Amino acid sequence: MSWITKDNKLVKEFIFKDFVQAFAFLTKVAIEAEKQQHHPEIFNVYNRVIISLQTHDAGNMVTEKDYKLAAKIDALI
Amino acid sequence: MSWITKDNKLVKEFIFKDFVQAFAFLTKVAIEAEKQQHHPEIFNVYNRVIISLQTHDAGNMVTEKDYKLAAKIDALI
Amino acid sequence: MSWITKDNKLVKEFIFKDFVQAFAFLTKVAIEAEKQQHHPEIFNVYNRVIISLQTHDAGNMVTEKDYKLAAKIDALI
Amino acid sequence: MSWITKDNKLVKEFIFKDFVQAFAFLTKVAIEAEKQQHHPEIFNVYNRVIISLQTHDAGNMVTEKDYKLAAKIDALI
Repeated sequence: MSWITKDNKLVKEFIFKDFVQAFAFLTKVAIEAEKQQHHPEIFNVYNRVIISLQTHDAGNMVTEKDYKLAAKIDALI
Repeated sequence: MSWITKDNKLVKEFIFKDFVQAFAFLTKVAIEAEKQQHHPEIFNVYNRVIISLQTHDAGNMVTEKDYKLAAKIDALI
Repeated sequence: MSWITKDNKLVKEFIFKDFVQAFAFLTKVAIEAEKQQHHPEIFNVYNRVIISLQTHDAGNMVTEKDYKLAAKIDALI
Repeated sequence: MSWITKDNKLVKEFIFKDFVQAFAFLTKVAIEAEKQQHHPEIFNVYNRVIISLQTHDAGNMVTEKDYKLAAKIDALI
Protein backbone atom coordinates (compact mmCIF):
# COMPACT_ATOMS: atom_id res chain seq x y z
CA MET A 1 0.00 0.00 0.00
CA SER A 2 1.07 3.60 -0.40
CA TRP A 3 0.30 6.96 1.17
CA ILE A 4 -2.94 8.62 0.08
CA THR A 5 -4.10 12.20 0.53
CA LYS A 6 -7.36 12.55 2.44
CA ASP A 7 -8.85 15.63 4.19
CA ASN A 8 -5.58 17.52 3.68
CA LYS A 9 -3.65 14.72 5.36
CA LEU A 10 -1.13 12.19 4.11
CA VAL A 11 -2.52 8.86 5.33
CA LYS A 12 -1.27 5.28 5.32
CA GLU A 13 -2.55 2.09 6.88
CA PHE A 14 -0.16 -0.62 8.08
CA ILE A 15 -1.13 -4.19 8.96
CA PHE A 16 1.14 -6.31 11.14
CA LYS A 17 1.20 -9.93 12.28
CA ASP A 18 -0.06 -9.04 15.75
CA PHE A 19 -0.26 -6.27 18.35
CA VAL A 20 3.32 -6.67 19.56
CA GLN A 21 4.72 -6.11 16.06
CA ALA A 22 2.35 -3.17 15.51
CA PHE A 23 3.40 -1.48 18.74
CA ALA A 24 7.12 -2.01 18.08
CA PHE A 25 6.58 -0.19 14.77
CA LEU A 26 4.81 2.65 16.63
CA THR A 27 7.81 2.92 18.95
CA LYS A 28 10.06 3.45 15.92
CA VAL A 29 7.63 6.03 14.52
CA ALA A 30 7.54 7.80 17.90
CA ILE A 31 11.33 8.06 18.12
CA GLU A 32 11.58 9.40 14.57
CA ALA A 33 8.69 11.85 15.02
CA GLU A 34 10.25 13.36 18.13
CA LYS A 35 13.62 13.55 16.38
CA GLN A 36 12.06 15.53 13.52
CA GLN A 37 9.85 17.47 15.95
CA HIS A 38 6.90 16.61 13.73
CA HIS A 39 4.23 14.42 15.33
CA PRO A 40 1.71 12.37 13.35
CA GLU A 41 -1.81 11.36 14.24
CA ILE A 42 -1.53 7.75 15.30
CA PHE A 43 -4.41 5.30 15.36
CA ASN A 44 -3.96 1.70 16.46
CA VAL A 45 -6.16 -1.24 17.25
CA TYR A 46 -4.59 -4.69 17.59
CA ASN A 47 -2.44 -5.32 14.46
CA ARG A 48 -3.66 -2.27 12.54
CA VAL A 49 -1.96 1.15 12.50
CA ILE A 50 -3.06 4.28 10.66
CA ILE A 51 -0.62 7.19 10.43
CA SER A 52 -1.90 10.62 9.32
CA LEU A 53 0.44 13.51 8.59
CA GLN A 54 -0.35 17.20 8.35
CA THR A 55 1.54 20.40 9.11
CA HIS A 56 -0.45 22.39 11.66
CA ASP A 57 1.82 25.43 11.42
CA ALA A 58 1.07 25.62 7.71
CA GLY A 59 -2.70 25.87 8.08
CA ASN A 60 -3.23 22.10 8.33
CA MET A 61 -1.86 21.34 4.89
CA VAL A 62 0.44 18.60 3.64
CA THR A 63 3.94 20.05 3.35
CA GLU A 64 7.50 18.93 2.70
CA LYS A 65 7.80 18.05 6.43
CA ASP A 66 5.06 15.46 6.00
CA TYR A 67 6.59 13.87 2.90
CA LYS A 68 9.92 13.71 4.70
CA LEU A 69 8.46 11.95 7.76
CA ALA A 70 6.38 9.65 5.53
CA ALA A 71 9.50 8.52 3.67
CA LYS A 72 11.31 7.94 6.95
CA ILE A 73 8.38 5.93 8.36
CA ASP A 74 8.41 3.67 5.29
CA ALA A 75 12.11 3.05 5.89
CA LEU A 76 11.49 2.01 9.52
CA ILE A 77 9.56 -1.18 8.86
CA MET B 1 -11.52 13.44 33.81
CA SER B 2 -13.20 10.09 33.90
CA TRP B 3 -14.23 7.38 31.46
CA ILE B 4 -17.38 8.08 29.46
CA THR B 5 -19.53 5.71 27.42
CA LYS B 6 -19.87 6.67 23.76
CA ASP B 7 -20.96 4.55 20.77
CA ASN B 8 -20.82 1.42 22.92
CA LYS B 9 -17.25 2.17 23.90
CA LEU B 10 -15.62 3.18 27.17
CA VAL B 11 -13.60 6.27 26.25
CA LYS B 12 -11.11 8.48 28.08
CA GLU B 13 -8.86 11.31 26.97
CA PHE B 14 -5.47 11.90 28.59
CA ILE B 15 -3.38 15.05 28.24
CA PHE B 16 0.36 14.97 28.97
CA LYS B 17 3.14 17.53 29.19
CA ASP B 18 4.52 16.60 25.80
CA PHE B 19 4.77 13.81 23.22
CA VAL B 20 7.49 11.89 25.07
CA GLN B 21 5.35 11.60 28.21
CA ALA B 22 2.30 10.66 26.13
CA PHE B 23 4.16 7.90 24.32
CA ALA B 24 5.68 6.50 27.51
CA PHE B 25 2.11 6.19 28.82
CA LEU B 26 1.09 4.39 25.62
CA THR B 27 3.97 1.94 26.14
CA LYS B 28 2.58 1.11 29.58
CA VAL B 29 -0.92 0.70 28.12
CA ALA B 30 0.48 -1.55 25.38
CA ILE B 31 2.23 -3.86 27.84
CA GLU B 32 -0.88 -4.14 30.01
CA ALA B 33 -3.20 -4.66 27.03
CA GLU B 34 -1.10 -7.53 25.69
CA LYS B 35 -0.89 -9.04 29.16
CA GLN B 36 -4.69 -9.03 29.43
CA GLN B 37 -5.05 -10.02 25.77
CA HIS B 38 -7.51 -7.18 25.37
CA HIS B 39 -6.44 -4.42 22.99
CA PRO B 40 -7.88 -0.89 23.05
CA GLU B 41 -8.32 1.57 20.24
CA ILE B 42 -5.50 4.04 20.68
CA PHE B 43 -5.46 7.54 19.25
CA ASN B 44 -2.54 9.90 19.77
CA VAL B 45 -1.41 13.23 18.48
CA TYR B 46 1.41 15.06 20.27
CA ASN B 47 0.51 15.23 24.00
CA ARG B 48 -3.05 13.95 23.60
CA VAL B 49 -4.12 10.30 23.95
CA ILE B 50 -7.62 8.86 23.56
CA ILE B 51 -8.23 5.27 24.67
CA SER B 52 -11.44 3.50 23.60
CA LEU B 53 -12.44 0.11 24.99
CA GLN B 54 -14.96 -2.36 23.63
CA THR B 55 -15.29 -6.13 23.63
CA HIS B 56 -15.48 -7.34 20.03
CA ASP B 57 -16.24 -10.94 21.01
CA ALA B 58 -19.30 -9.72 22.88
CA GLY B 59 -20.90 -7.99 19.89
CA ASN B 60 -18.94 -4.77 20.34
CA MET B 61 -20.33 -3.98 23.75
CA VAL B 62 -18.67 -2.68 26.91
CA THR B 63 -18.05 -5.64 29.21
CA GLU B 64 -16.28 -6.49 32.43
CA LYS B 65 -13.03 -6.91 30.43
CA ASP B 66 -13.19 -3.24 29.44
CA TYR B 67 -13.83 -1.99 32.97
CA LYS B 68 -10.94 -4.14 34.20
CA LEU B 69 -8.51 -2.74 31.62
CA ALA B 70 -9.79 0.83 32.20
CA ALA B 71 -9.06 0.54 35.92
CA LYS B 72 -5.60 -0.84 35.19
CA ILE B 73 -4.87 1.99 32.72
CA ASP B 74 -5.82 4.58 35.34
CA ALA B 75 -3.36 2.93 37.72
CA LEU B 76 -0.52 3.15 35.18
CA ILE B 77 -0.17 6.92 35.10
CA MET C 1 24.13 -16.68 16.71
CA SER C 2 22.50 -18.81 19.32
CA TRP C 3 21.94 -18.74 23.08
CA ILE C 4 24.91 -19.72 25.22
CA THR C 5 25.06 -20.65 28.88
CA LYS C 6 27.34 -18.46 30.98
CA ASP C 7 27.45 -17.95 34.76
CA ASN C 8 24.21 -19.91 35.14
CA LYS C 9 22.48 -17.62 32.66
CA LEU C 10 21.14 -18.16 29.17
CA VAL C 11 22.72 -15.34 27.16
CA LYS C 12 22.35 -14.06 23.60
CA GLU C 13 23.67 -11.01 21.80
CA PHE C 14 21.68 -9.31 19.06
CA ILE C 15 23.05 -6.77 16.58
CA PHE C 16 20.68 -4.40 14.74
CA LYS C 17 21.03 -1.84 11.98
CA ASP C 18 20.83 1.06 14.41
CA PHE C 19 19.55 2.15 17.82
CA VAL C 20 15.95 2.61 16.70
CA GLN C 21 15.71 -0.99 15.47
CA ALA C 22 17.44 -2.24 18.63
CA PHE C 23 15.03 -0.39 20.91
CA ALA C 24 11.95 -1.55 18.97
CA PHE C 25 13.17 -5.10 19.57
CA LEU C 26 13.55 -4.35 23.29
CA THR C 27 9.97 -3.09 23.34
CA LYS C 28 8.80 -6.44 21.98
CA VAL C 29 10.95 -8.27 24.55
CA ALA C 30 9.51 -6.07 27.32
CA ILE C 31 5.90 -6.82 26.36
CA GLU C 32 6.57 -10.56 26.18
CA ALA C 33 8.55 -10.61 29.45
CA GLU C 34 5.76 -8.90 31.35
CA LYS C 35 3.20 -11.23 29.78
CA GLN C 36 5.16 -14.25 31.00
CA GLN C 37 5.97 -12.52 34.31
CA HIS C 38 9.61 -13.45 33.75
CA HIS C 39 11.99 -10.52 33.30
CA PRO C 40 15.40 -10.80 31.65
CA GLU C 41 18.55 -8.81 32.27
CA ILE C 42 18.71 -6.37 29.38
CA PHE C 43 21.87 -4.63 28.23
CA ASN C 44 21.86 -2.18 25.33
CA VAL C 45 24.24 0.27 23.79
CA TYR C 46 23.41 1.73 20.38
CA ASN C 47 22.64 -1.19 18.00
CA ARG C 48 23.75 -3.93 20.38
CA VAL C 49 21.47 -5.83 22.77
CA ILE C 50 22.42 -8.58 25.23
CA ILE C 51 19.64 -10.57 26.88
CA SER C 52 20.44 -12.77 29.90
CA LEU C 53 17.92 -15.17 31.39
CA GLN C 54 17.92 -16.85 34.79
CA THR C 55 15.25 -17.98 37.22
CA HIS C 56 15.80 -16.22 40.54
CA ASP C 57 13.13 -18.26 42.34
CA ALA C 58 15.04 -21.41 41.42
CA GLY C 59 18.32 -20.39 43.03
CA ASN C 60 19.51 -18.40 40.02
CA MET C 61 19.58 -21.36 37.68
CA VAL C 62 18.47 -21.70 34.05
CA THR C 63 15.05 -23.36 34.04
CA GLU C 64 12.24 -24.20 31.65
CA LYS C 65 10.91 -20.62 32.11
CA ASP C 66 14.15 -19.27 30.61
CA TYR C 67 14.11 -21.61 27.63
CA LYS C 68 10.47 -20.70 26.99
CA LEU C 69 11.17 -16.94 27.03
CA ALA C 70 14.33 -17.42 24.93
CA ALA C 71 12.34 -19.22 22.23
CA LYS C 72 9.68 -16.49 22.30
CA ILE C 73 12.34 -13.75 22.03
CA ASP C 74 13.83 -15.46 18.95
CA ALA C 75 10.38 -15.45 17.37
CA LEU C 76 9.95 -11.70 17.97
CA ILE C 77 12.65 -10.49 15.60
CA MET D 1 20.43 9.44 44.25
CA SER D 2 22.68 11.35 41.93
CA TRP D 3 25.03 10.62 39.06
CA ILE D 4 28.43 9.25 40.01
CA THR D 5 31.59 8.97 37.95
CA LYS D 6 32.93 5.44 37.61
CA ASP D 7 35.40 3.99 35.05
CA ASN D 8 35.22 7.20 33.02
CA LYS D 9 31.45 6.96 32.85
CA LEU D 10 28.65 9.01 34.34
CA VAL D 11 26.44 6.42 36.04
CA LYS D 12 23.06 6.51 37.77
CA GLU D 13 20.77 3.82 39.10
CA PHE D 14 17.00 4.25 39.06
CA ILE D 15 14.51 2.12 40.98
CA PHE D 16 10.86 1.99 39.91
CA LYS D 17 7.68 0.47 41.30
CA ASP D 18 7.75 -2.38 38.81
CA PHE D 19 8.99 -3.46 35.38
CA VAL D 20 6.29 -1.60 33.45
CA GLN D 21 7.24 1.73 35.03
CA ALA D 22 10.95 0.99 34.48
CA PHE D 23 10.45 0.20 30.82
CA ALA D 24 8.28 3.28 30.22
CA PHE D 25 11.18 5.33 31.60
CA LEU D 26 13.58 3.55 29.24
CA THR D 27 11.29 4.45 26.33
CA LYS D 28 11.60 8.13 27.29
CA VAL D 29 15.38 7.78 27.58
CA ALA D 30 15.51 6.06 24.17
CA ILE D 31 13.57 8.85 22.45
CA GLU D 32 15.76 11.53 24.03
CA ALA D 33 19.01 9.67 23.28
CA GLU D 34 18.15 9.28 19.61
CA LYS D 35 17.12 12.95 19.45
CA GLN D 36 20.51 14.01 20.81
CA GLN D 37 22.28 11.31 18.77
CA HIS D 38 24.04 10.25 21.94
CA HIS D 39 23.27 6.73 23.16
CA PRO D 40 23.81 5.55 26.73
CA GLU D 41 24.62 2.11 28.01
CA ILE D 42 21.35 0.81 29.39
CA PHE D 43 21.04 -1.99 31.93
CA ASN D 44 17.69 -3.20 33.20
CA VAL D 45 16.37 -6.03 35.26
CA TYR D 46 12.77 -5.88 36.54
CA ASN D 47 12.32 -2.50 38.32
CA ARG D 48 16.00 -1.51 38.24
CA VAL D 49 17.65 0.62 35.54
CA ILE D 50 21.30 1.66 35.33
CA ILE D 51 22.26 4.32 32.79
CA SER D 52 25.95 4.87 31.95
CA LEU D 53 27.13 7.78 29.82
CA GLN D 54 30.43 8.22 28.02
CA THR D 55 31.53 9.95 24.84
CA HIS D 56 33.18 7.38 22.57
CA ASP D 57 34.32 9.99 20.05
CA ALA D 58 36.24 11.73 22.82
CA GLY D 59 38.35 8.72 23.80
CA ASN D 60 35.69 7.26 26.11
CA MET D 61 35.67 10.21 28.45
CA VAL D 62 32.79 12.03 30.16
CA THR D 63 32.10 15.20 28.18
CA GLU D 64 29.57 18.00 27.99
CA LYS D 65 27.35 15.74 25.81
CA ASP D 66 27.06 13.30 28.72
CA TYR D 67 26.18 15.96 31.28
CA LYS D 68 23.57 17.35 28.88
CA LEU D 69 21.91 13.95 28.38
CA ALA D 70 22.13 13.20 32.12
CA ALA D 71 20.28 16.40 32.95
CA LYS D 72 17.64 15.62 30.33
CA ILE D 73 17.19 12.07 31.66
CA ASP D 74 16.63 13.43 35.19
CA ALA D 75 13.92 15.69 33.78
CA LEU D 76 12.12 12.76 32.11
CA ILE D 77 11.04 10.95 35.27
